[in-house]
Amino acid sequence: MLDSGDISDLISLVGKDRVFSAPEDLVAYSYDASRAQNLPDIVTTPGSSEDVQKILRFASERRIPVYPRGSGTGMTGGSVPEQGGIALVMTSMNRILDIDSRNLTARVQPGLILHEFKETVKKQGLFYPPDPASAKFASIGGTVAVNAGGLNSVKYGVTRDYVLSLEAVTPIGDILRFGASTMKSVTGYDMTRLLVGSEGTLAIITEITVKLIPHPRSRFTILASFTDDQDALNTAQQIMEKGLIPCALEFMDETAVHCARIYSGHPFLNHAAGVLLIEFDSLQENGMDLRQDISRAKEVLASCGALETRETADPKEREELWEIRKCLSPAVYEIAPSKLNEDICIPRSEMISVIQEIKTIARNHGINVVNFAHAGDGNIHVNFMYDGKNPEQADHAHRAVEELFRMTVKRRGTLSGEHGIGRTKLPFLSLEYGEGERKIMREIKKLFDPEGILNPNKSIM
Amino acid sequence: MLDSGDISDLISLVGKDRVFSAPEDLVAYSYDASRAQNLPDIVTTPGSSEDVQKILRFASERRIPVYPRGSGTGMTGGSVPEQGGIALVMTSMNRILDIDSRNLTARVQPGLILHEFKETVKKQGLFYPPDPASAKFASIGGTVAVNAGGLNSVKYGVTRDYVLSLEAVTPIGDILRFGASTMKSVTGYDMTRLLVGSEGTLAIITEITVKLIPHPRSRFTILASFTDDQDALNTAQQIMEKGLIPCALEFMDETAVHCARIYSGHPFLNHAAGVLLIEFDSLQENGMDLRQDISRAKEVLASCGALETRETADPKEREELWEIRKCLSPAVYEIAPSKLNEDICIPRSEMISVIQEIKTIARNHGINVVNFAHAGDGNIHVNFMYDGKNPEQADHAHRAVEELFRMTVKRRGTLSGEHGIGRTKLPFLSLEYGEGERKIMREIKKLFDPEGILNPNKSIM
Repeated sequence: MLDSGDISDLISLVGKDRVFSAPEDLVAYSYDASRAQNLPDIVTTPGSSEDVQKILRFASERRIPVYPRGSGTGMTGGSVPEQGGIALVMTSMNRILDIDSRNLTARVQPGLILHEFKETVKKQGLFYPPDPASAKFASIGGTVAVNAGGLNSVKYGVTRDYVLSLEAVTPIGDILRFGASTMKSVTGYDMTRLLVGSEGTLAIITEITVKLIPHPRSRFTILASFTDDQDALNTAQQIMEKGLIPCALEFMDETAVHCARIYSGHPFLNHAAGVLLIEFDSLQENGMDLRQDISRAKEVLASCGALETRETADPKEREELWEIRKCLSPAVYEIAPSKLNEDICIPRSEMISVIQEIKTIARNHGINVVNFAHAGDGNIHVNFMYDGKNPEQADHAHRAVEELFRMTVKRRGTLSGEHGIGRTKLPFLSLEYGEGERKIMREIKKLFDPEGILNPNKSIM
Repeated sequence: MLDSGDISDLISLVGKDRVFSAPEDLVAYSYDASRAQNLPDIVTTPGSSEDVQKILRFASERRIPVYPRGSGTGMTGGSVPEQGGIALVMTSMNRILDIDSRNLTARVQPGLILHEFKETVKKQGLFYPPDPASAKFASIGGTVAVNAGGLNSVKYGVTRDYVLSLEAVTPIGDILRFGASTMKSVTGYDMTRLLVGSEGTLAIITEITVKLIPHPRSRFTILASFTDDQDALNTAQQIMEKGLIPCALEFMDETAVHCARIYSGHPFLNHAAGVLLIEFDSLQENGMDLRQDISRAKEVLASCGALETRETADPKEREELWEIRKCLSPAVYEIAPSKLNEDICIPRSEMISVIQEIKTIARNHGINVVNFAHAGDGNIHVNFMYDGKNPEQADHAHRAVEELFRMTVKRRGTLSGEHGIGRTKLPFLSLEYGEGERKIMREIKKLFDPEGILNPNKSIM
């Protein structure tokens, strides 16, 4: 708990315009998308790396916990100030510092909204691929902190693959720069990627240099329905095994289709019990080079028993097809008021049996489950749906999550494909990593943060 | 220095078939491709992770330095047993453990020869892109240790981008597994990539799981000559700025062309003072989807003043075109008997002026320099050529290297694009990383290796 002396010292360090303590400020930065919540004692919005340095030195000296935060769109409680302390809100450091169109790189501050960045570089014909569902609100710093993926990872990889170098401030107040703005570098250890995905537990990222690539100039989208969601998964597997590289390969299971049908009323879903959205993109304006891939994908669809397909190369029609997939976030609430949303990743070939097992887990607990997946990556979004006002159901949902993680690890999977571990998955970390692995992670944490002030009890334990 | 008691204890740990001390064995594992050399006291060839564990525990207890080694193709002295001790030769652990063609992954041991692995997966239509010039001899463990790149990184990235998970043995003898065999994972810290590129200073990698992609089914290669090597570089820059993504974009400067001309006698080089090799590849057998890229590349070649071009889609003719680039390793010795070979990487847009500056540095020191480059990455192989028997020339060559690195860092470049730091570049590390950055790297080293036995005085300082 910060006392009034602490608060006035903090104000004298960074200025009163950067320190907030009104109840409405504390509430605004008390939660993330996981619904976990706890009030910070104080909120501060640094305007520079030097501000961050001052705040962290101050906090390290007084052993005050610091909770870094972008837009609060995280799914695992990663930015929730569990022990009060300081909410370090990075949204004021939100500038694009440089777009280097000759070298296809950009330098940005962490508070920049991902969507704004993507749209800005797109105007120059450039593409920054990471594309989590929260892109319109998420800060780029937050996406670096969790190594965010998204819809197009199957072709373009994840955030880690685009980060070239970072400036970061350690809890003891060192401003460090790791990596190089060059396409390759093997100088020293890869501290850049150690920080990517470390969920704000090692250092505060204050500047990010990323690689850009040429923006696709055309896309071809196919939406396919199936009478059995296993056929949809089988189609996805066949597409990947045939050596096709779609830029999206999204799966919706029977319950997901059901929710989308009720929510959107879309007639395409009327007889469907599984949906696959397949997209290819091209650097060529006319997309003529995609012809062969499209025809091979259609062969697979026919041979795997697709019920109905829609296809388009038109950007506007594309949005309509995507709407069926993108409506899922609100649509899942059609069947229950609360959800526990996990993002396991498994070897792709395990998807059919894992989806079956997930349905069994839910059934055994008397709750519903909605599965949708980045099927090309084996990355399944498992949404256990329940009534949060019913304590027994809530308990079943939480037990279902634990069973999900145990099963995932047994199937050579990982607890998180793109959300991170944060707070909510931390109790399950030991399912995936033994004591030896976790010990060295804890020791690395201690190297960076000897006083343990930075986002304590998150990501690793 | 190991005494006879140490040696017999080591034999009792791993068996006498795995321990070698004959002078010819010591010589065989005393050097790498950098020409640095020092005899180990003993050579051991572990056959399992447990052997590695025993050897490392033994060495940690007795504080004996251990030098891990694949095929010894490193360019920076990274595997040279500078202080004697144990040469830990990983070549007996050279099996492909699994190729999973459904999930596009493979699990291999570190001693496996990269070329053998690439050819084996190719037979299944699969592609493992990393392709250093030493691929026919290099062990895959060595390429992971230095995060090797190669000819096709401009399109396909580097080793780091393909490593999914690692088993590694720490110097204190813990067998750890980091990462997951899934396409995405953000569980815990990214220790996998901390180990990739750590040049055998943190742990011994004993098993590697990599991602595979579909193998290209066709290629189109263009060889172009120029009367001025700046025109060749300008062409390379234009190709990248036009949003083309070649799978190779190789540059040879005037002196490189001169060496290749003398060595190969190829008439194509007769009037050339600069060469560019441009290659595109495709997943389609007929490569029809490349047409537009090829025609745009040819427009650039014409507008940038290419003197002559050859082009082919035929695999055999392709080999002939590549021969002009690939002959450079022996050909550089046409102008001097010794070389210092560095692999700086700079922002691509700096290439023209950096190549000029390199030529000036060499001229000022009265020696020759041969530059060739992975021009799409800004990764230049700078070969200062001199007579090693002439101490004054040798001194000039070494001073030229120091000036090269100083200039590189000034131009926002990095000391190494793909060779690593090893021993030879270590004195220059502080040009690129300040004390704060190096301190935390040293502390990480100490976490893994408290006794400092594992490849001491390499990679970081």
